[in-house]
Amino acid sequence: MLIIGERINSTRAHIQEAMKARDTAFIVKEAKKQIEAGAGFIDVNCAMSLGDEIRDIDWVISVIQSEIGDVSICIDSPNHLAIERALEAYRAKGKLFINSITGEQARIDLIVPLAVKYNTKLIALTMGEGGMPNSAEDRLAIAKDILTKVSAKGFKAEDIYFDPLIRPISTEPDQAKEFLKSIPMIKSLGAKTVCGLSNISYGLPDRKIINSTFLAMAIQSGLDAAILDPTEKQVVSSIAAAEALMCKDEYCSDYIKAFREGRLI
Amino acid sequence: MLIIGERINSTRAHIQEAMKARDTAFIVKEAKKQIEAGAGFIDVNCAMSLGDEIRDIDWVISVIQSEIGDVSICIDSPNHLAIERALEAYRAKGKLFINSITGEQARIDLIVPLAVKYNTKLIALTMGEGGMPNSAEDRLAIAKDILTKVSAKGFKAEDIYFDPLIRPISTEPDQAKEFLKSIPMIKSLGAKTVCGLSNISYGLPDRKIINSTFLAMAIQSGLDAAILDPTEKQVVSSIAAAEALMCKDEYCSDYIKAFREGRLI
Repeated sequence: MLIIGERINSTRAHIQEAMKARDTAFIVKEAKKQIEAGAGFIDVNCAMSLGDEIRDIDWVISVIQSEIGDVSICIDSPNHLAIERALEAYRAKGKLFINSITGEQARIDLIVPLAVKYNTKLIALTMGEGGMPNSAEDRLAIAKDILTKVSAKGFKAEDIYFDPLIRPISTEPDQAKEFLKSIPMIKSLGAKTVCGLSNISYGLPDRKIINSTFLAMAIQSGLDAAILDPTEKQVVSSIAAAEALMCKDEYCSDYIKAFREGRLI
Repeated sequence: MLIIGERINSTRAHIQEAMKARDTAFIVKEAKKQIEAGAGFIDVNCAMSLGDEIRDIDWVISVIQSEIGDVSICIDSPNHLAIERALEAYRAKGKLFINSITGEQARIDLIVPLAVKYNTKLIALTMGEGGMPNSAEDRLAIAKDILTKVSAKGFKAEDIYFDPLIRPISTEPDQAKEFLKSIPMIKSLGAKTVCGLSNISYGLPDRKIINSTFLAMAIQSGLDAAILDPTEKQVVSSIAAAEALMCKDEYCSDYIKAFREGRLI
C-alpha cells in the first residue's frame, strides 16, 4: 500500500513555525524521517501557514527537492494558484499528486487541466455538489460522476485516487462499514482508493488502536493508499502485518525487515 | 465476538505442573483472570497433562465451578471418554462447547450424541477424511459434509462453530486470504465460525502484531468466536476496536470501558 506522509502540514504548530522561520533543516528532517519510515509521497500543505501560501509552498517544495533529490510530492491545497506554483516549482524526477478535487465543477475546471499538463495523479474526495455521502452507494454515485467529468478533460481513471471520506465512529457508528463497502465498488470503476486515516477515531481515547485496526480492514477491502503519519509505529505495524496477511509481501520479507529495523511496536 | 480463553491448556508448562500438583488456587486464578479480561468460555485441555486425562479434566472442571460458580466451559480433548467425564462433572448453570470434531465419521458417531444429550455447542474443524483444505471452496465443501452428518444426528446448524483452520503465512502465504474468504461462505449455511488464532503467525517475529491484525480482518469477515489468550492486550485492543468499527458496540461504550479499565495497549 502506498503511504502518503502527512506530517508537513501547516495545521501542525511546529510545521507552521518552521514555515514562518524558513527553517530548512526542520522541514527537510520531517521529509526525510517520513521517507525512511516508508512514505512513498510527502504531502505538503501550507494553507494554514498564516503567511503567503503561494510563496510558502514554493519554498517548501524547493528546499525538499534541493536537499533530498527525487522525492515524490503530494501537493495539498484548497488554492489552485498555490497548486500551480507548486507544480512549477517541482523539478525533481519523482511523481506528483494533487490533493484534492471534489465533484464541484468549478474546482474540476481549474485543477484537472493542471493535472493533465503536469502528468500528476489526483485525489478526489467523494463529495458531490449535494454534500457528504452516507451510504457506499452514494459514494459510488459521486465517484462515477467525478470520473465522467475528469475523463472528459482527458484524465485517466487509473490515476485518480478516490477518498470515500471517513467519518468518526464515535458519532456516526455505521460509517466505517459504509466506507469499507465502498472500496471494491469504487475500484470496479478502474480507479484507485485512498483515505485520510485519523478522522475515524475522532473523539475516542487511544486513537492509534482505532486507526491501525481500521487501516487493516481497509487494506483487506483493497485500499490502495493512505495519508498518515508513517512514524507512528502502531499504524506501521498494522500495515506491515496486513500486507503480509493479504499475500502482498512475499515470504513476509518486508514485515521481517520492518521488525529488524525496529519499525514495529 | 465470543472469546474462548485458551490459557488452561496442558501444553503450557505452568498449567501442566498445576494439574499434576492439584494446585487449585493456580487453576482458579487462571480461569478468573480470563473471565475478567472478557472470556465468555474457558477452554479446558488436559490431554497433555502426563497424568490421567480423565481424572485431570474432572478435577479441573470441578474446582473451577466450585470456586467460580456458573462459568461456561469449552471441553477440549481428543479423547471421547474424557469429554464424557467432563460433561458429567459439569453442574454449573453456564453453557458448554465440545472442542472438537472433524469430518471423520467415527469421531462424529462418538461425540455428536454427547453434544445432543448435554445440549452443548460444537467446534468442528474443516478437516475431511482427505486431510487439510487449501481453498475457501474446499473448506465450504467439508463444512457442508460435516453439517449433513451432524444434522442427521439431530444437532442444530446454529450451534456448530466451524474452524476453517488457519495455517502459517510464513510458509503458506495465500492461506490467510482463503481462510477469510471462507467465513461468509460457511456462515451462509446457517452455522457459525471460530478460529484458534495463534497458528497464523508461526515462525514470524512480533507475533502479537500478526495475530491482532488478522483477528481484525476476521471480525470484518464475520468471525463469531476465537480461541485466544484474553490477557494479551494487543489482541484485546484489536477486538475492541474491530467491534466498534463494525458497528457492534453502541456508542463505542465497550471500547471506552476497556480503555478506562486499562485493558488496551
